Amino acid sequence: MPVRAGFEIAIDDLPFLARGCAVLGGGGGGDPLLGEVLARQALSDHGPVLVVDLDDLPADGLVMPCGLIGAPTVVLEKLHSGDEGARLAREVETLCGRPVAAILPFEIGGANGLIPLAWAARLGLPFVDADGMGRAFPLMTQMTMNLAGVSADPCVVSDERSNTLVIKADLVGWVERLVRSAADAFGGAGVAALYLMSVEQARSATVRRSVSRALRLGRMIAQDRAPLQAVMAELGAIELCRGKVVDVDRSTTDGFVRGSAVVQRVAGHGGLLRLEIQNEYLVAIEDGEIRASVPDVITVLDTNDLGVVTTERLRYGQHVTVIAFPCDAVWRTPLGLEIAGPRAFGYDFGHVGLGGSHADPS
Amino acid sequence: MPVRAGFEIAIDDLPFLARGCAVLGGGGGGDPLLGEVLARQALSDHGPVLVVDLDDLPADGLVMPCGLIGAPTVVLEKLHSGDEGARLAREVETLCGRPVAAILPFEIGGANGLIPLAWAARLGLPFVDADGMGRAFPLMTQMTMNLAGVSADPCVVSDERSNTLVIKADLVGWVERLVRSAADAFGGAGVAALYLMSVEQARSATVRRSVSRALRLGRMIAQDRAPLQAVMAELGAIELCRGKVVDVDRSTTDGFVRGSAVVQRVAGHGGLLRLEIQNEYLVAIEDGEIRASVPDVITVLDTNDLGVVTTERLRYGQHVTVIAFPCDAVWRTPLGLEIAGPRAFGYDFGHVGLGGSHADPS
Repeated sequence: MPVRAGFEIAIDDLPFLARGCAVLGGGGGGDPLLGEVLARQALSDHGPVLVVDLDDLPADGLVMPCGLIGAPTVVLEKLHSGDEGARLAREVETLCGRPVAAILPFEIGGANGLIPLAWAARLGLPFVDADGMGRAFPLMTQMTMNLAGVSADPCVVSDERSNTLVIKADLVGWVERLVRSAADAFGGAGVAALYLMSVEQARSATVRRSVSRALRLGRMIAQDRAPLQAVMAELGAIELCRGKVVDVDRSTTDGFVRGSAVVQRVAGHGGLLRLEIQNEYLVAIEDGEIRASVPDVITVLDTNDLGVVTTERLRYGQHVTVIAFPCDAVWRTPLGLEIAGPRAFGYDFGHVGLGGSHADPS
Repeated sequence: MPVRAGFEIAIDDLPFLARGCAVLGGGGGGDPLLGEVLARQALSDHGPVLVVDLDDLPADGLVMPCGLIGAPTVVLEKLHSGDEGARLAREVETLCGRPVAAILPFEIGGANGLIPLAWAARLGLPFVDADGMGRAFPLMTQMTMNLAGVSADPCVVSDERSNTLVIKADLVGWVERLVRSAADAFGGAGVAALYLMSVEQARSATVRRSVSRALRLGRMIAQDRAPLQAVMAELGAIELCRGKVVDVDRSTTDGFVRGSAVVQRVAGHGGLLRLEIQNEYLVAIEDGEIRASVPDVITVLDTNDLGVVTTERLRYGQHVTVIAFPCDAVWRTPLGLEIAGPRAFGYDFGHVGLGGSHADPS
């Protein structure tokens, strides 16, 4: 194995990684607990996974970005067989005519920061210390590989029954549409590998060192004396609201979780913060003012134990603290905002920065 | 080319083939006029197509069954690029590792008896004198290759934009579900190749000589002095009703045309014949009595010119003659009825023979 350096993730590290991925997920990416359980089993069967920086992998090695697709509500109940990653890798290797050198989570958020780690363990492959979002997003188009011009063709999708589809489409919008349709046909969720690329391409097409960042955040929450303050300082986060969930309107349609939630402040004037949802928390609005918006990350924490409340777990009566922090700089570029800003989700306003500045007011 | 014998289909034969395919289609398989136009262009560009019997092809040759998928209402307006067949063949050859030896229409009914002929012309390949239904049916499961145990895995689907999917699924029910979902994502229609098999397999897994049968029927309608009587005698058909279309309830959903129509008799007591539709005419009911049912073929003819009225062309006020004739014997076996009898379409009754006999009353 020509891998030069890195660090290992062992079973004891998984709770930290899960907490970190949860915070970075913006409420999406699938329940981190599910990812932790699957990774725990895989690491128990196959030992620790080597996490490597892209600089330490051979430049021509094949990187396989992968993860869960579909609606997190479905993922909670539609169990995995464990073979999904191996099936993706087999198809990818057939399509590319060469072995997969390393596994990359296409998003670091939620379960999707951990499930590809489980696949890496089962495949005996290194896990790249990077991802394709730096957070979680609902669409296949919303990956940094797309921003960097890496082709999403071919894309492999599969499910726990071993149904497998190879999608060949020139336009990434068609890849997204066909992936979504397949996830829906699978019953609402599945797995995918796409944006297949060389290590050299990956070096400039991914959010680097996001796995170690998630681990660091997770350790902070578990071990710091003032964990919320420490994590918020690390993330450059602001607190949007502390209160009680007083309304949740959520449905699972077209392979997504969609809806909205309202948090009522416990202190002060008792104002209402509205959260808009499509797999992730997209926008936070209070008194008609946009307090935070995609691509910045909105994360909802349980006020009592700082556990992250994903969009599919949100329910009436929860006491929560809503924070928001800046996304990776790549998403604040004009192309990044076009692909993952509020307008990309159908809103009629551009990105509003966390300080209230309009980054793309057009 | 090791093909020994056969006959040619030239441009002048196409109107006859189109009329024959229309009659055999049971109202489905896409508008034959569309198929005729596409075949006319292909034969004009590439010359006549050799139609061969399976006995005259090398036993180990690769047969590619193919055709349109989706809702015929959509097919009318979503135009073809002409490259669809070549794209299917290229994917099939990559998957199978050998060249396609001959093209087989997966159904002889409607446009689907002619469009694969156009593809054969463009590919310079022989066209097999057989098909996978002996008529048209809405589902991918409802092919004689499925009855014969030929695997539907892998299946290739594509559209006019060059989006292509390779579907790998052990269960044919999943192939159907994923094909339908893809057709829906494409906008309601597409093309597919599946049940890839050797010539030797095809000899016992298809309805033989259905292309020459369609040609013979088409010539009869165009040239016989008493065409309706001649065609009905040839098919062993009965007349269910002659009357006027007084109601059409039709919608395009989930990649199908669904609905029903009512024909009021012009003579006698003016009774009403109800036709149930899923791409094809499935069941004809009069005064609570099932007059004809799948897998037998129900065909609606324009009373004035004997033009076939497909389910997507049916409209209020048309004067029509509704006939029904027996399906191929393979569909009257227990497995055939299980896959394509009324219960397979959700009805709570078994197949009722054209004389009123119940073939699967359980």
